[in-house]
Amino acid sequence: MKIALAQLNYHIGNFEANTQKIIETLNQQKAEGTDIVVFSELCICGYPPRDFLEYSEFIQLCESAANNVAKACQGIACIIGLPIHNPVIEGKDLYNAAYFIADGEVKQVIKKALLPTYDVFDEYRYFEPAHEFKCVDYKGHKIAITICEDLWNLGDNPLYKTCPMDELIKESPDFMINIAASPFAYNHDEERIFILSQNCRKYNLPLFYVNHVGAQTELIFDGGSLVFDKAGDLVSEFKYFEEDVRVFNVEQVQSSIVLNKPFKRPTDTEQVYQALVLGIKDYFQKSGFTKATLGLSGGIDSAVVCALAYEALGAENVMAVLMPSKYSSDHSIKDAEALAKNIGCKSTVIPIKTVANAFDETLKDEFAGLEANLAEENIQARSRGVIMMAMSNKFGYILLNTSNKSESAVGYGTLYGDMCGAISVIGDCYKTQVYQLANYINREREIIPINTITKPPSAELRPDQKDSDSLPDYDILDKILFEYIEMRKSSKDIIADGYDEALVNRILKMVNKAEFKRYQTPPILRISPKAFGMGRRMPIVGKYLS
Amino acid sequence: MKIALAQLNYHIGNFEANTQKIIETLNQQKAEGTDIVVFSELCICGYPPRDFLEYSEFIQLCESAANNVAKACQGIACIIGLPIHNPVIEGKDLYNAAYFIADGEVKQVIKKALLPTYDVFDEYRYFEPAHEFKCVDYKGHKIAITICEDLWNLGDNPLYKTCPMDELIKESPDFMINIAASPFAYNHDEERIFILSQNCRKYNLPLFYVNHVGAQTELIFDGGSLVFDKAGDLVSEFKYFEEDVRVFNVEQVQSSIVLNKPFKRPTDTEQVYQALVLGIKDYFQKSGFTKATLGLSGGIDSAVVCALAYEALGAENVMAVLMPSKYSSDHSIKDAEALAKNIGCKSTVIPIKTVANAFDETLKDEFAGLEANLAEENIQARSRGVIMMAMSNKFGYILLNTSNKSESAVGYGTLYGDMCGAISVIGDCYKTQVYQLANYINREREIIPINTITKPPSAELRPDQKDSDSLPDYDILDKILFEYIEMRKSSKDIIADGYDEALVNRILKMVNKAEFKRYQTPPILRISPKAFGMGRRMPIVGKYLS
Repeated sequence: MKIALAQLNYHIGNFEANTQKIIETLNQQKAEGTDIVVFSELCICGYPPRDFLEYSEFIQLCESAANNVAKACQGIACIIGLPIHNPVIEGKDLYNAAYFIADGEVKQVIKKALLPTYDVFDEYRYFEPAHEFKCVDYKGHKIAITICEDLWNLGDNPLYKTCPMDELIKESPDFMINIAASPFAYNHDEERIFILSQNCRKYNLPLFYVNHVGAQTELIFDGGSLVFDKAGDLVSEFKYFEEDVRVFNVEQVQSSIVLNKPFKRPTDTEQVYQALVLGIKDYFQKSGFTKATLGLSGGIDSAVVCALAYEALGAENVMAVLMPSKYSSDHSIKDAEALAKNIGCKSTVIPIKTVANAFDETLKDEFAGLEANLAEENIQARSRGVIMMAMSNKFGYILLNTSNKSESAVGYGTLYGDMCGAISVIGDCYKTQVYQLANYINREREIIPINTITKPPSAELRPDQKDSDSLPDYDILDKILFEYIEMRKSSKDIIADGYDEALVNRILKMVNKAEFKRYQTPPILRISPKAFGMGRRMPIVGKYLS
Repeated sequence: MKIALAQLNYHIGNFEANTQKIIETLNQQKAEGTDIVVFSELCICGYPPRDFLEYSEFIQLCESAANNVAKACQGIACIIGLPIHNPVIEGKDLYNAAYFIADGEVKQVIKKALLPTYDVFDEYRYFEPAHEFKCVDYKGHKIAITICEDLWNLGDNPLYKTCPMDELIKESPDFMINIAASPFAYNHDEERIFILSQNCRKYNLPLFYVNHVGAQTELIFDGGSLVFDKAGDLVSEFKYFEEDVRVFNVEQVQSSIVLNKPFKRPTDTEQVYQALVLGIKDYFQKSGFTKATLGLSGGIDSAVVCALAYEALGAENVMAVLMPSKYSSDHSIKDAEALAKNIGCKSTVIPIKTVANAFDETLKDEFAGLEANLAEENIQARSRGVIMMAMSNKFGYILLNTSNKSESAVGYGTLYGDMCGAISVIGDCYKTQVYQLANYINREREIIPINTITKPPSAELRPDQKDSDSLPDYDILDKILFEYIEMRKSSKDIIADGYDEALVNRILKMVNKAEFKRYQTPPILRISPKAFGMGRRMPIVGKYLS
């Protein structure tokens, strides 16, 4: 029996495009004699559909799209994912389901039992967990089909009380299929391979695992679908960040005949780079935009975002705007211009002096006799924000936000100023990761000027300002932030790891106090296991560590 | 036996203040000979603690605060709510629990079974549902104690498969106690009374129900605790939007002796007014601020917000800023000044002409030869945003956002312009509700100038602009929006209700297309069953109705 795994890029709510993509793949595979084509979780509507699921019309559209797929599925079988109604009165109104389709008909419905409800996931918000499990019989094979999280209940601290494969194994299936929508984080590929391989060993079965690929606003699905033999050894690892369809002979996989060459997995930085490029590309493509703009300061953050936008959209679609003030150093303009030249994108210089002076003039009565302070610094950042949005409004550019995770964490950014933008490109990258990206971007030639990488970071909002005036070195700051944000350690435990007590307490307080700013941040492309945004939900008016 | 229900205002993560408030109440009640004092759900840490729950240090702080309460609980019993560890390896790591405390010790632990995971609620994100139920025996009474949602599984479409009271009733309890954190929505008080009364009738038991009161950023808990006799008749209805502690003789309630006079429930508009005043008051008090500022345009939205701020914070803490442009009509300034005078708050006039001209000058090369359009309109709104934030930064004022729900729904607002602010006061009020509030505010004297109420709404961003140029009348718009947002009807069903097809399709498309703007909106005080923000989670890059 031949099984194809179709790792495709869907678009939330775009039933026409999603259905067309599925049917085309079915037709191609049919021509090649494939028996079953496996598509990923909720492929009919895209993942995550969020509260669209609360509209019964949306569910009906899923159902009719699935019917169209079924009609087209003649002489071949397929597995598709979609939300379906729960006919039982008690419990949530929907199931996260898969259809097994053959001969133009839905032959069996598989329901998801383990509903991720943590971090960016909200599945129990919508879905009732399945309590009954049954293998699919097809062409003499017994297949244990599960949906994503259903295989993720192994280990020391399982999140759920049930384990679907413990039930399905009772029917002695021949192999497992899992359809997934598992988003990227730089540490997630190894974890995924480990967990899935453990399942193969536990149940002594081969596994065909197909993942979603493509970005849905902030969530980037990395693909990397996998096939394992029953010993848990990797038979095939699909491309990351690209569509990929591969066909397998089930009997060969069952006999542990490894078909594909060992895969050289990219480094974390390489993966993050590719993820962010896909994130930008899909944000634009799926919202129907082509052109991006951003403020280029001469610093490393905007330089990295500019290089990523160039890779994602092409030089002709990137417009860099240089907005020097009286505090901008000589090298800022020079470095920014060198970058634009290296990339070959358009750039323009719009000094903010006239505007900043106009605000000073306008506020002079109100502010009479008061020292210049944060208010005047923020006026500069916000003047730049207004200029960038005016460029966006006038020419249809989408503004890319260039804030990094370190500054966003400690509130070192100006709301409605440098925190503007439609999408935050590197808002989940700590400053030290931004440097790694810069070096990666320069791997073949100098795209980002070396001076941008080597000079000390500065917001340039007052004379001779340096980030290090008010923050510790980023390699220390980022480690403390990682322990607090990603590891969720207490101040006591972080201090026990060897960091200065006063510093740790000051940093944690800054993080918690800046929650009100992060609430109004653009969506942030997620590349870590704990990004700001939907995956980290904090009270604003609270008194814990603040 | 005497039971006191303590309807108190807690502060998330403020263990010291919460514990002190609980212990003081215990001491007062002990002096009065009360047997049991009942506090509300998660009173130890405040509700909702959100992802603070993922910090084990936070859970430890809850535990030690509860221990302090237990130590102080001598010669009296109490029920408090707190998150506790789940010692079982499988499942989530926490329970949403209640402690029954007597003689300085935790005598029994009650765990919540039904975990609201919809709208603003995320409880299954953190908590394992309880599967075992046991009544509490105390002083010869058998008490069925449940936590909030545990009583909300009646009706045609129950969300859960289990029903805690169906288990507890097997022990033949004498009465029910429910501790809750049930947030305000203008239609929720009647619903609450109906459901709780149904429980009394179903189980033929009296019920003591204590709710949380106070605002936690966007969520406003309205109190209104309730006591019912076994026939489901109301024995007592507590104050709304205020702390309130009342003592009941259990035997009297059991014999259906009604103790309190029938309660005259305020109208919806009155409730919304009180909710918003409490929302502002608690936002400031709990974040340690006293002074508010806002832009006063002469229009109805900012006028209503100004009047609410005056009621919440006092005239001396409100600073109104008038920022006329060349498009501002004569009456705008006059109406705004009249309002400030009626209220007695400070006001100042800061024209935006100089700043708007400076932006024009700065962008004249970029924009050469292009017609003035949305870009220039937004520059005006954003210039005002920068001025307001400068006032905020310089003087420590907190900026109140004045957007209403109708304009937020259709994207009729400028990001980083009039959408700025720390908290959105009327962002969950449709324009028609804003008018109702204005009339309510003027119930005794003219606070909001009549002209502000009667003149046609306008953003005044170009000559003679009116909202009605691009939007239908608000009484039609708001009804369509309500059907789509609150009722989650499909376009087909809304059209079937008698609205113009093209109009409905245009409006729904506007709503879905403006999702990117709402993502960056400040937190919105929630007064409806479906507010923008945490309770409505929509994809940004999606293609459903857009």
